[in-house]
Amino acid sequence: MTTRVPKLLDVPVGLDATGTRRETDSMGAIDVPADRYWGAQTERSLIHFSIGDDRMPTAVYHAYGYVKKAAAIVNGRAGRLPAWKSDVIQRVANEVIAGKLDEHFPLYVWQTGSGTQSNMNTNEVISNRAIQLVGGELGSKSPIHPNDHVNMGQSSNDTFPTAMHIAAVKEIHEHLLPSVQMLHQAIEAKSRQWHDVVKIGRTHLEDAVPLTVGQEWSGYAHQLKQAIDRVARSAEGLYELAMGGTAVGTGLNAPPGFGEQVAAEIASATGFPFTTAANKFAAQGGLDAMVGASAGLRALAVPLMKIANDIRWLASGPRCGLAELNLPANEPGSSIMPGKVNPTQCEAMVMVCIQVLSEDTVIAFAGSQGNFELNAMRPVVINNFLHAATILADACTKMREYCIEDADLNREQIDSYVNRSLMLVTALSPVIGYDKASAIAHKANDEGTTLREAALASGYISAEEFDHIVRPAAMVGREENDAA
Amino acid sequence: MTTRVPKLLDVPVGLDATGTRRETDSMGAIDVPADRYWGAQTERSLIHFSIGDDRMPTAVYHAYGYVKKAAAIVNGRAGRLPAWKSDVIQRVANEVIAGKLDEHFPLYVWQTGSGTQSNMNTNEVISNRAIQLVGGELGSKSPIHPNDHVNMGQSSNDTFPTAMHIAAVKEIHEHLLPSVQMLHQAIEAKSRQWHDVVKIGRTHLEDAVPLTVGQEWSGYAHQLKQAIDRVARSAEGLYELAMGGTAVGTGLNAPPGFGEQVAAEIASATGFPFTTAANKFAAQGGLDAMVGASAGLRALAVPLMKIANDIRWLASGPRCGLAELNLPANEPGSSIMPGKVNPTQCEAMVMVCIQVLSEDTVIAFAGSQGNFELNAMRPVVINNFLHAATILADACTKMREYCIEDADLNREQIDSYVNRSLMLVTALSPVIGYDKASAIAHKANDEGTTLREAALASGYISAEEFDHIVRPAAMVGREENDAA
Amino acid sequence: MTTRVPKLLDVPVGLDATGTRRETDSMGAIDVPADRYWGAQTERSLIHFSIGDDRMPTAVYHAYGYVKKAAAIVNGRAGRLPAWKSDVIQRVANEVIAGKLDEHFPLYVWQTGSGTQSNMNTNEVISNRAIQLVGGELGSKSPIHPNDHVNMGQSSNDTFPTAMHIAAVKEIHEHLLPSVQMLHQAIEAKSRQWHDVVKIGRTHLEDAVPLTVGQEWSGYAHQLKQAIDRVARSAEGLYELAMGGTAVGTGLNAPPGFGEQVAAEIASATGFPFTTAANKFAAQGGLDAMVGASAGLRALAVPLMKIANDIRWLASGPRCGLAELNLPANEPGSSIMPGKVNPTQCEAMVMVCIQVLSEDTVIAFAGSQGNFELNAMRPVVINNFLHAATILADACTKMREYCIEDADLNREQIDSYVNRSLMLVTALSPVIGYDKASAIAHKANDEGTTLREAALASGYISAEEFDHIVRPAAMVGREENDAA
Amino acid sequence: MTTRVPKLLDVPVGLDATGTRRETDSMGAIDVPADRYWGAQTERSLIHFSIGDDRMPTAVYHAYGYVKKAAAIVNGRAGRLPAWKSDVIQRVANEVIAGKLDEHFPLYVWQTGSGTQSNMNTNEVISNRAIQLVGGELGSKSPIHPNDHVNMGQSSNDTFPTAMHIAAVKEIHEHLLPSVQMLHQAIEAKSRQWHDVVKIGRTHLEDAVPLTVGQEWSGYAHQLKQAIDRVARSAEGLYELAMGGTAVGTGLNAPPGFGEQVAAEIASATGFPFTTAANKFAAQGGLDAMVGASAGLRALAVPLMKIANDIRWLASGPRCGLAELNLPANEPGSSIMPGKVNPTQCEAMVMVCIQVLSEDTVIAFAGSQGNFELNAMRPVVINNFLHAATILADACTKMREYCIEDADLNREQIDSYVNRSLMLVTALSPVIGYDKASAIAHKANDEGTTLREAALASGYISAEEFDHIVRPAAMVGREENDAA
Repeated sequence: MTTRVPKLLDVPVGLDATGTRRETDSMGAIDVPADRYWGAQTERSLIHFSIGDDRMPTAVYHAYGYVKKAAAIVNGRAGRLPAWKSDVIQRVANEVIAGKLDEHFPLYVWQTGSGTQSNMNTNEVISNRAIQLVGGELGSKSPIHPNDHVNMGQSSNDTFPTAMHIAAVKEIHEHLLPSVQMLHQAIEAKSRQWHDVVKIGRTHLEDAVPLTVGQEWSGYAHQLKQAIDRVARSAEGLYELAMGGTAVGTGLNAPPGFGEQVAAEIASATGFPFTTAANKFAAQGGLDAMVGASAGLRALAVPLMKIANDIRWLASGPRCGLAELNLPANEPGSSIMPGKVNPTQCEAMVMVCIQVLSEDTVIAFAGSQGNFELNAMRPVVINNFLHAATILADACTKMREYCIEDADLNREQIDSYVNRSLMLVTALSPVIGYDKASAIAHKANDEGTTLREAALASGYISAEEFDHIVRPAAMVGREENDAA
Repeated sequence: MTTRVPKLLDVPVGLDATGTRRETDSMGAIDVPADRYWGAQTERSLIHFSIGDDRMPTAVYHAYGYVKKAAAIVNGRAGRLPAWKSDVIQRVANEVIAGKLDEHFPLYVWQTGSGTQSNMNTNEVISNRAIQLVGGELGSKSPIHPNDHVNMGQSSNDTFPTAMHIAAVKEIHEHLLPSVQMLHQAIEAKSRQWHDVVKIGRTHLEDAVPLTVGQEWSGYAHQLKQAIDRVARSAEGLYELAMGGTAVGTGLNAPPGFGEQVAAEIASATGFPFTTAANKFAAQGGLDAMVGASAGLRALAVPLMKIANDIRWLASGPRCGLAELNLPANEPGSSIMPGKVNPTQCEAMVMVCIQVLSEDTVIAFAGSQGNFELNAMRPVVINNFLHAATILADACTKMREYCIEDADLNREQIDSYVNRSLMLVTALSPVIGYDKASAIAHKANDEGTTLREAALASGYISAEEFDHIVRPAAMVGREENDAA
Repeated sequence: MTTRVPKLLDVPVGLDATGTRRETDSMGAIDVPADRYWGAQTERSLIHFSIGDDRMPTAVYHAYGYVKKAAAIVNGRAGRLPAWKSDVIQRVANEVIAGKLDEHFPLYVWQTGSGTQSNMNTNEVISNRAIQLVGGELGSKSPIHPNDHVNMGQSSNDTFPTAMHIAAVKEIHEHLLPSVQMLHQAIEAKSRQWHDVVKIGRTHLEDAVPLTVGQEWSGYAHQLKQAIDRVARSAEGLYELAMGGTAVGTGLNAPPGFGEQVAAEIASATGFPFTTAANKFAAQGGLDAMVGASAGLRALAVPLMKIANDIRWLASGPRCGLAELNLPANEPGSSIMPGKVNPTQCEAMVMVCIQVLSEDTVIAFAGSQGNFELNAMRPVVINNFLHAATILADACTKMREYCIEDADLNREQIDSYVNRSLMLVTALSPVIGYDKASAIAHKANDEGTTLREAALASGYISAEEFDHIVRPAAMVGREENDAA
Repeated sequence: MTTRVPKLLDVPVGLDATGTRRETDSMGAIDVPADRYWGAQTERSLIHFSIGDDRMPTAVYHAYGYVKKAAAIVNGRAGRLPAWKSDVIQRVANEVIAGKLDEHFPLYVWQTGSGTQSNMNTNEVISNRAIQLVGGELGSKSPIHPNDHVNMGQSSNDTFPTAMHIAAVKEIHEHLLPSVQMLHQAIEAKSRQWHDVVKIGRTHLEDAVPLTVGQEWSGYAHQLKQAIDRVARSAEGLYELAMGGTAVGTGLNAPPGFGEQVAAEIASATGFPFTTAANKFAAQGGLDAMVGASAGLRALAVPLMKIANDIRWLASGPRCGLAELNLPANEPGSSIMPGKVNPTQCEAMVMVCIQVLSEDTVIAFAGSQGNFELNAMRPVVINNFLHAATILADACTKMREYCIEDADLNREQIDSYVNRSLMLVTALSPVIGYDKASAIAHKANDEGTTLREAALASGYISAEEFDHIVRPAAMVGREENDAA
């Protein structure tokens, strides 16, 4: 099967044709749109799976670009694939990576559970684009065959998991984490800005002892810092790639060392420390690394929901709520109530978090449904994962820009709460004991007096002592708390 | 404020303009694309909430078309709104309903939790399109004001819940249920076709006593029939509409009877028995009807998942699985294993069901997060609901077309299983008792003999008795089971 | 096999013995505690499944009492079982129903997925207790055999689903619904009591237009009323019983009409309208009726969570929160803050609701995992269902007794909010238009004035008009809302 | 307040009294059972929260023993607490740790969301037991006061989170991980034992290319190994303790360094590397470390469910299933079908996993519901966590003992599948190309021939070549896979 090395034509991406083109696969022939590179299997999938309008994310195909490129490099280097075939596959793979062929990847999320149809979509597009580049006949599968060359040494069962991991790692590190880090910094800046504003604490929604606004926000900042760490650590399992396992994990039809070499090429191309999975049967039969990484997304959604809720409650009012915080008025809040402004960024964030928590359960549920040598629930998993990471990232950016950065304090209200709270009585406890302190607080509450009045009336403490002990600013702690 | 009745121009939908147009709201002025009808609030929302690429489903706006039309009719009839204003609003609302203005509703799902921005998007688009029709100046809000006229007697807090219910009811009755009913019929047809094929039953995945294939499929059919009923009944709560409650449920700024009259108009226009909600505080503070309706979707996903799993297991093989069922070979199943065919429709269905189960939990979770006079988690709820209903509907259609209708039995294999099963011993139990029957079965299993051999060797039963009693065809029950 | 009819001894429940007794089954012999009625299969299950400390709820065994009693009646009436055997089985079944044998049902939830071991536990206990009553030898299985007589015409695969349904129906109707109805009445009473107290409404946590406290609580009452209805309707599917299907739904070894007759006996004994399932393959292969009924529990948990959250927020304070509501001070709230009182009933309720929402997902997930003729996830389903219903019932009772009934209003605070709110401006909107009204509200907010001051300063409205229009008590709606 | 140092009496644990004893707290007096150490607040909680029968796990109180002991040591060392008071508190705390006072901790899970009542239960029990030891009057709170001495420098808001972490760490490291490790070893042993048994692989449930049984089980082993690692790493966040934050995180009423010192004492007493939390506001306002640790439990449940499902499918039969695996026959499988044996351990495991997945969602949901300085959803979180860890641990032990260790292969069946599979054709692909190989497979399937027959008939390959290439034993891969 010696082929003369063809000259690569300088044809830009795109097919200038109308109507349809005949493509074939083992099921027979089928017409495909003439202006698309895909082949018979893609077309069949489009027909059989037009369910809703959920399309396999382009990020998966960009990741597949890395897979096909790496395989072509390794196959070429080993001489299994002629150098010029390797080169042209790499060239097209680079176009895939760059997003230039996005419109040629039309498949639905709901398809075969192995992602085979997306793998074949990639193989077919690369095959036909390569054929175009060498001046061949589209659909002829020659001289670049989708299975024999583009898919050489590979199976959907090892490439699709590999592409999932690449896409997920890139989304986490290139989109999500930068966005969360900037939100973290914005919150930390607020914590520093408000480090000395004493406010009343609240537990069980009830008045408690004071702290500073800076301390409160240091808690938010620290939760985010820990979540960032959890996201990153939870995603480490994604660095292990299934490539090399082929159909069932044994590596049939792939040469020894193929998985290691492909992983090294992918690591080199992406800049992330990908390696070959230690056990391919686990990597292909399970989805454990994805389930683990999804737990990182959840670890972020949980504190974000708490923070967003806190902020909208603190900003509640303006006159009949807690009203400690003023949020930027981004848009009119009501179609009927003039002048109303609402904490909309917080609401969007809460909804995003609820969505993410549920998408995380999709991933866990699907992760549990594997059988034997394959977990065939892969498309639903990668779609939910990428969606969750994306909306978290974007929601963090929007919340930072349109809610956090321009938030301001209502200091008058904050002071007023501190001054009227009864829980300052707690500072008396070490001196007069819990029981007497408790009696003072109940007395003030029942009689509607200030704490000071009730304390002095109780006879348990002198005015001088009271004024010495019950100073909110002295009750907020000397110890630094690590905000970051 | 007497306005001369303007003549309606015959302008088709669309704005032939480039660049931007200045629009205003209570926050000030902002530029919007000149070829779009939307106004300032829509534009602000687009800027503040570009999170992922989840857009509010067009079905919500079509439903809003019914809302605005009905309100205009009722306001016009009562003379609150001049007849010509009512007419032009109705005319544009009809365009909205017909989907002619879809591209003018660009907002994200992630926005204010009340859906106010989608309500205002609708108000703004109808206002500007109406202004165009009367030859006025876009953005002038005159003579048709988005709030004062299009939103007259309304709030987002009663219209958005109303639009949610309309959109959900239409999706269920016009898309989902027809699709499921056709799947049900296809399965029922198979049940009748195979009513006399005796096969081995399986419980705990282990060989059990026989039944007919028709009986087995009558179970699937009956599960679907019950699920159809659950979907329909669970959705009945959606017929209650919040309209008339306005901002907090009291109906402020809406005249007495407004809710009843608007509901009647919506019922008339849609053909569904909508009525006004008995208690507007419950309707606006909660999302209980949506949570209830979502339980109907789940009630469908649960048996669909079981059926899809059964079918792919029954079709497993072709030579190393159960292999009782042959599914149509729609597409090549493997990029590496030539000739492989997989139960892809079943896999897609299982993934859809897992997705739906999780979207149902989004709805329940969000439904629990209301506060006071509003549950502000509405956009995430309607988006998940419509998505779940849509993918269920489409998956049922595809499964019927590409998996069920052309499924066939492998009768040789089915017979072979029946003949070798040891659990036919059960029929002996009433005659010789459980303990002796058990001993026979264990003996056959341990010695690898047929049941008949072990039975006769046991001395508990004669060959004649055995042959009389142990007849699979006689063990499958005389009673009819209601498949439908 | 004619047995002389034995005389029934008057032996009270209980075995006065120490040490162990030898019992046998098809696996061989095993020692069981001599003071327990159970046999070999129960003992094996105890050994093999001591996982955690989750025991099959006694309600399941009480329900099994009805099953065994009904089967004995029908078998006796048909002459398949001698009358005296039927009688003694019925007598013991009555003891089971009355809870007299509870300590003889020790099995874990985590066991075989069909519940076979609990069925056999019941069969063994009834067998041995019956043997005791006729003066026989425990463990001899004679004259009352656990399989041949107690289980006659039955399988675990039809009796366990039947017992599940009976137990669930009883828990819902005899425990849960009465408790929720009393909570509903308590809330409705509060709604009536406070029907004329005008308060500020809140949407998005932000100040909105006024309503009465009675209206707000009518919303809670109505949500509960609808939830009660959803619980009851969702549970209707439970009235269909699998009995008569035996091992795989065909009814092998059960006579024609057995299912119908047994269902009629169970209906008669329990007072609930049980009938035989229309399709036994669906009833045994699926768990759809349980999944459906569980949706009813969720339909209750969702509004309960909203109500509990509202109440604790309304009661927040006492001096730095919303403080509209005073809850009874049941217990000290803090180990460190003297005099603190917390909304603990609300917190317990919220936690219960979160638990119930998740137990509902157990049921849906398990419901999707059936295979062929059996869904073998039954024990986990009934355990979660009964637990969820029980904690909901008890939490409603406690919340009513210790939170709702003695709740009181802080009318001074409520009035104060109404008077200072800016959203009363909404009433001006129909008169001066949304845009001018909006300008007034923004002006008051920016300048910290009252709404009246800002309105008069705006020149858009006279003092007389303002005072005529902006009357909170006139803004809360004339229309009655159906609280119940 | 100088107290003479009392002599410690040698009184064993227990109160030899009947009837009731009067106890008091800030709400007044209340009678408690005279034979119990608890005080007024415990008694109130028992009355107000008898919801279901879920009791706070004793593991929480044992953990509280460590907390109270460490606080007493630190307070004593600093001279805040007289040495003898510190000593007697430590002595009783040791009794708590040892489980000797378990019956004095009766509270329900459903209580105040901070766990205050369990903290006070501990304080009260230690106070009264200490009073007993010094010959004082029970209920007098003297000389050891529950708040002033046992709770010195502490709040429920820092001690309960601390006790949660201690209890969770101990359960994971002392119960769960040892059990999973033994299961892992048992599976790994099987992997080694069966390393050379060639079997057919299955993907999409369909016949695929071969692998060895050892390879398949190495996948299970590796999944478990990774899960063990995820459990351990996910739990690392639990080492950070909130102690020192007291009421709202500021450390009010605790001396500087208290948190650090107490953490060090707890580390020393338990042998785990506990440290003080870097930010107490995050530690008390959130539950992120628990949510993170719960993800570890889920990471275990997901592969366990896959493994359990695989095993029961591989063992399906005996004559009408896959039948590659023989599981030990532990108990009779059916009440109606004599001789039936079911994969009950696998079913129990699957149910356990479904339960754990849902308990994990309880924890995430509750973790998102904090407000301000406290997440008041703590009891439901620790109860679900400990329950999930416990049932996972026990289910792993039972599955190992009663399912894995005595599992055996049905080699005849395994061989037979390999020989008849068509997917061996894959090995021809690199030689004759995917398309021709595919044609051969389809031909064999359509004509019901062997692969060899179809291959030779195709003319694409000679008999010699076929026999050289298509050797299952040569197709299972040379590369070692890391099983462990």
